[in-house]
Amino acid sequence: MTTVLIKGLGLIGSSLARIIKQGHSDVTVWAIDPNQDNIAFARQQGFIDQAITDWQAASQADFIFLATPVSQIIEDIHQLAQLSLKSSVVVTDVGSTKQTIMDAAQELTAKGIDFVGGHPMAGSHLTGAQAGQVDLFKDAFYFLISTIKGDDTQRLQSLLSAAQVIWTPISAADHDKLVAQISHLPHILAYTLVYQTAHTLAGHHPGIQAAAGGFKSTTRIAQADPTMWTAIMQNNQTDILQQLDEYLADLQMVRDAIDKGDLATLKNLFSEAAMVRQSLNRGEIACK
Amino acid sequence: MTTVLIKGLGLIGSSLARIIKQGHSDVTVWAIDPNQDNIAFARQQGFIDQAITDWQAASQADFIFLATPVSQIIEDIHQLAQLSLKSSVVVTDVGSTKQTIMDAAQELTAKGIDFVGGHPMAGSHLTGAQAGQVDLFKDAFYFLISTIKGDDTQRLQSLLSAAQVIWTPISAADHDKLVAQISHLPHILAYTLVYQTAHTLAGHHPGIQAAAGGFKSTTRIAQADPTMWTAIMQNNQTDILQQLDEYLADLQMVRDAIDKGDLATLKNLFSEAAMVRQSLNRGEIACK
Repeated sequence: MTTVLIKGLGLIGSSLARIIKQGHSDVTVWAIDPNQDNIAFARQQGFIDQAITDWQAASQADFIFLATPVSQIIEDIHQLAQLSLKSSVVVTDVGSTKQTIMDAAQELTAKGIDFVGGHPMAGSHLTGAQAGQVDLFKDAFYFLISTIKGDDTQRLQSLLSAAQVIWTPISAADHDKLVAQISHLPHILAYTLVYQTAHTLAGHHPGIQAAAGGFKSTTRIAQADPTMWTAIMQNNQTDILQQLDEYLADLQMVRDAIDKGDLATLKNLFSEAAMVRQSLNRGEIACK
Repeated sequence: MTTVLIKGLGLIGSSLARIIKQGHSDVTVWAIDPNQDNIAFARQQGFIDQAITDWQAASQADFIFLATPVSQIIEDIHQLAQLSLKSSVVVTDVGSTKQTIMDAAQELTAKGIDFVGGHPMAGSHLTGAQAGQVDLFKDAFYFLISTIKGDDTQRLQSLLSAAQVIWTPISAADHDKLVAQISHLPHILAYTLVYQTAHTLAGHHPGIQAAAGGFKSTTRIAQADPTMWTAIMQNNQTDILQQLDEYLADLQMVRDAIDKGDLATLKNLFSEAAMVRQSLNRGEIACK
């Protein structure tokens, strides 16, 4: 019998529990979460078998998923390194940055415990166990950072077969640069746009309430959890600064082209961007 | 019998034709559009009665809608000012900037022809008569810039009653600042983000194709027509530069907070932005 322990039953952790139960109804799923609403909902829906309050239970697990914010993942890795885990256990995580986590995980690997860093590239601004979905990651890239023998990676992929993701091996360094660019930078731009718009239009009627679909979709991710995103700024500081500086340079170039009335530069840049963006429209749902 | 002439049967013009016909089936709608697909589709669907090829027909119209890009609207205003129009005609437009159009429209008002600048704050990255919808502007702000007697504005609103918009009088100057902030700036940020991402990740696997819902929604409007958006940069240059400079200053402030590890500043800014953005969620459709 296979036992899986999931720490954190939020959007991502509860989706993983659903995925595991859908693909392998015989697997036992335990969960640790201080939020009793998440636990109660998960038990009622049947995608966990038992709530755990004591980390000691980790010694009986065949798979351990760390599905909390990055700083908590790092703390939990330290905790796990103090316990006697099964020698065959696979410890994995779903944190949105990987270098700091892989560094911390050396404590486990030094003890012969296999750690596979993971990151499914999908999410939502919604949070909590109720927001999870069995198909949350469907057709998305699921990055795996592994320094260990291939067998354990395959066991993990098999456990999550119902997720229907595109498994993608990558180094921690390449991963962190990639997500700095396609995830962290867009969040910074969206938060800053809402902040600056609110201040600029304060006291003007109808102000920001006149925002149409374009503004709303551009800033949808500015609804994401501020605590989690502040931590990401710290955990991936170097890559974020590099990509943000590149963006600032390009935005300044666009600003100067507008100032000089250099319409050719603007049209070329807008045209290239429109073409690239249209190429990303696989199965996307248009929204108002 | 009321006759309406619409110049331009794209997304916006064809939506207006549908709105007029839905609210007033007895109104005759004529259209001018060089695109024969737009004309054929509109006739087949019955939301125009006749295609017009000669501007002279404008002399018989009770309402004239200019629903083309801004530069063409300005050219058409010059054309209309040479014709003998009905003294009771209302000329209006749907251009996305208003000051240059209101300036041009002085040629008409000097001749006693009433001009009402208009701008419905809704749209889509889709284009053409087939993409139009009778409810495209439903619950959105429809700005009206009028220098004329109130009767004509009311006649226009009555003609478009089926649009179910929030009619909002505004000055051209306030309008152009507002749209620079909530529409033009987001487009610049989105185009630039796609452009910079494509260049940064060129040659990396999986690169930009790994982009998840967050990147996609932030850059959805980067699919908009590059020619139209280049013209907007020219037509609203002063307001766009002012709002873009404010944004650049705030983004630089965020950059410095990340660099210094000033997490309190980041969390305050992200929290304020998240709260403001959540307040805009009236009837929004979440999308992946």
